[in-house]
Amino acid sequence: MRYSQSIAVIGGVAAGPAAAAEAKRTDPDARVVLFERGGVISYGACEIPLVIEGGVPSQDLILFGAQEFEEEKGVEVRIWTNVDRIAPARNRLWARDTKSGASWEERFDKFIVATGAVATRPQVENANAKNAFVVRTLDDADAVRSSIQPGLSVVVAGAGYVGLEVAEAAVRAGARVTLLAPGGRILPGYLDDELATALAPSVKTSGLQLRAERLTSVVVDPAGRVQAVMTDARERIGCKVVVFATGVAPETALATEAGARIGESGALRVTDSMKTNVPNLWACGDCVEVRRVVDDKNVHVPLSPVAYRTARVAARNAASSGRGGSSKFDGVCPASAVKVFGFEAASVGLTLAQANESGLDAFAVDIEHWSRVKLYPGASRLKVRFVVERPRGRLLGGQLVGNDGAAMRANVLVPLIRDRWQIDRIDNLDFVYNPPVAPPLDPLYIAARAAIRELRP
Amino acid sequence: MRYSQSIAVIGGVAAGPAAAAEAKRTDPDARVVLFERGGVISYGACEIPLVIEGGVPSQDLILFGAQEFEEEKGVEVRIWTNVDRIAPARNRLWARDTKSGASWEERFDKFIVATGAVATRPQVENANAKNAFVVRTLDDADAVRSSIQPGLSVVVAGAGYVGLEVAEAAVRAGARVTLLAPGGRILPGYLDDELATALAPSVKTSGLQLRAERLTSVVVDPAGRVQAVMTDARERIGCKVVVFATGVAPETALATEAGARIGESGALRVTDSMKTNVPNLWACGDCVEVRRVVDDKNVHVPLSPVAYRTARVAARNAASSGRGGSSKFDGVCPASAVKVFGFEAASVGLTLAQANESGLDAFAVDIEHWSRVKLYPGASRLKVRFVVERPRGRLLGGQLVGNDGAAMRANVLVPLIRDRWQIDRIDNLDFVYNPPVAPPLDPLYIAARAAIRELRP
Repeated sequence: MRYSQSIAVIGGVAAGPAAAAEAKRTDPDARVVLFERGGVISYGACEIPLVIEGGVPSQDLILFGAQEFEEEKGVEVRIWTNVDRIAPARNRLWARDTKSGASWEERFDKFIVATGAVATRPQVENANAKNAFVVRTLDDADAVRSSIQPGLSVVVAGAGYVGLEVAEAAVRAGARVTLLAPGGRILPGYLDDELATALAPSVKTSGLQLRAERLTSVVVDPAGRVQAVMTDARERIGCKVVVFATGVAPETALATEAGARIGESGALRVTDSMKTNVPNLWACGDCVEVRRVVDDKNVHVPLSPVAYRTARVAARNAASSGRGGSSKFDGVCPASAVKVFGFEAASVGLTLAQANESGLDAFAVDIEHWSRVKLYPGASRLKVRFVVERPRGRLLGGQLVGNDGAAMRANVLVPLIRDRWQIDRIDNLDFVYNPPVAPPLDPLYIAARAAIRELRP
Repeated sequence: MRYSQSIAVIGGVAAGPAAAAEAKRTDPDARVVLFERGGVISYGACEIPLVIEGGVPSQDLILFGAQEFEEEKGVEVRIWTNVDRIAPARNRLWARDTKSGASWEERFDKFIVATGAVATRPQVENANAKNAFVVRTLDDADAVRSSIQPGLSVVVAGAGYVGLEVAEAAVRAGARVTLLAPGGRILPGYLDDELATALAPSVKTSGLQLRAERLTSVVVDPAGRVQAVMTDARERIGCKVVVFATGVAPETALATEAGARIGESGALRVTDSMKTNVPNLWACGDCVEVRRVVDDKNVHVPLSPVAYRTARVAARNAASSGRGGSSKFDGVCPASAVKVFGFEAASVGLTLAQANESGLDAFAVDIEHWSRVKLYPGASRLKVRFVVERPRGRLLGGQLVGNDGAAMRANVLVPLIRDRWQIDRIDNLDFVYNPPVAPPLDPLYIAARAAIRELRP
């Protein structure tokens, strides 16, 4: 068969397979090759806590086997293949078999980098000790799982959503877990300090100790294994396993070495066509930065739905480039949610801290209201914070915390924030009301009215 | 004390108390009087199924006692007081004590009618037999409750949300229940026929028999008590209790006798200020019709959140009329949800049938997708139907049915439909993704993409 063009997609977790499949859909005559340095592609990294908890083998998180993907999508898949270097302007790629070490050069018309992000370790002593883990890949998941035993002491550093989920999974696996939440803040960055600290008491379950300290070093035994951690309160916490859940960083080296520019967030800078500044090179997924529509700032939003969306845009443009047709990415209104320890927390748009940082004149209102009519099963108090811009009352962000109904309600705010709604208008929305699922006046409505009163007392 | 003005509010269930309180807030110097012909005001009629089920006394549904409301809101409350007639243009009202029968005339500057809607009985033989009930008021709830016993045969006629909820409550109270759902349609009017009939198998629980027939008459014993019902399949179903859940009608007599006009829906016609055509007369709640923003049609939407919103607008305008300031009601995007028999169903905007009826060129797409990541507790298949207008792809309505996550997702569609979004734009929304609460691609997103494919194959 004669191909119309050849497209290399580098990175096989989420954005890569999505981009490869979309490129092939866009131009069925193209040769599309997906490169992955590890042994698996297309897996659900967000379900890793199930593996750590036990009962779900990491293999179950794989959405497509390599061969299945090839057959179903018409894409060539090369696992165990590292792409060492690309020169997109010269249509060259250098690859290496990670098992045999054999390397070779290949020609491609176009390149899509989907190298993702890596979990980072803090810059502390012995951060790479045996039994000191990060959690990002299926290998990480298996490593943590096989290290945890009932009764074993585990320290989880960081109370972002990964830290919370890993801590909960380790508790369920029977470990005695210490969760380090610096400053006593739960979900910092997603929740403003008031809610982040108010949430701390909810992270209580048997087998878990929450401490408001920061990890400052790892102490190892003579064999180089984790023995304890030290904190900024000069406390020593004995443990056999440490999990760092302290953040991720975009994996940009392959693209930057080919000349791609980094943006203000530290991730790859791309146009709204997901094009880098390098000829023939597009990028997508957790390695790129995106425009946050609320404040027009370029930010790194390593969330799966965003990865899928950028992948589709990158692939359509790469596959149709030079042959008409284009697809634009119209930015992100960040939205995330977590459900752990029996509570739900969600955050959409900007926190007050982010709004202030962007120089917006903003204020926050906090309300608490029933998630359902209180006589009904599952009803509980839901805390809602709205972040609102003065003087017009534009909704900039929402944070919701409660045992019930936080995550799905957050979705309601996504289009409102994206469309720059003023809070007055929420007052005119007709939300569903049915006692077993929602109270007559929805918490979102109550929050809007509180914001209106604050804006125009 | 000298009052600035006097305002009579007639009807004490939901819109009435809301209007009275808002009128007093708008003009604290006004004398505001709330008239209610029964003995209680301000109750949650939607929680009546709990009373029928047992364990919750009907008194618990009362939000404010009359005296408590007076003290807290500064409104005079007259219970057991029927308003027989009003002459707003002449500032007159004729009231009657329903216990003593004493009647009198009073002067008011302004009038707000919030007379609500009544549950209707079908025009069939013996519809008013002993033990043949409707369910609308607390008295109805108590009457049904005290008639139902474990093992007793009960027929519920109508499978709208009231019928479903009453049937479920009666089953929980131990009754043997037959639910008559004409045509086998569950939630007709809220769900198009395809979903309405597909839902029928979900309405299965021990103690309940679902039949696709329509009730044609009630058979009574010599004492005039219910003995059986006959159906349009000429079947006789023996039973001791019948509950009609066949619809409601706006209670408009008081206003129309004063000269108020009825609109195309049969409810009171009002302006967007909730003003009737009669001088000094406003109306709100379940007795008025409202503009459905999706197709600009005037319709009767007897839902609690709409009642509250219309009440606030009516009250602000009545209280501030002649002294500047006005408040506009900007129509309704109908949204409703129900949770019964372990499933949730929700409907927003127009069904395909309603869209066709309004002469819109519309089509429907149906998808099914996971409500959460399928490995997680609570995950189940969610059916979503989008109703979309050709040729541009405006979203006209959404229907969601499943065991999980239908109702809250429906709320997401409310602002989209109100703002005349095209489905392409849903493709750009970032919904929250977290395995225990939502899959990576939300069902709403999947439905949008299906609609896009249908629109532009």
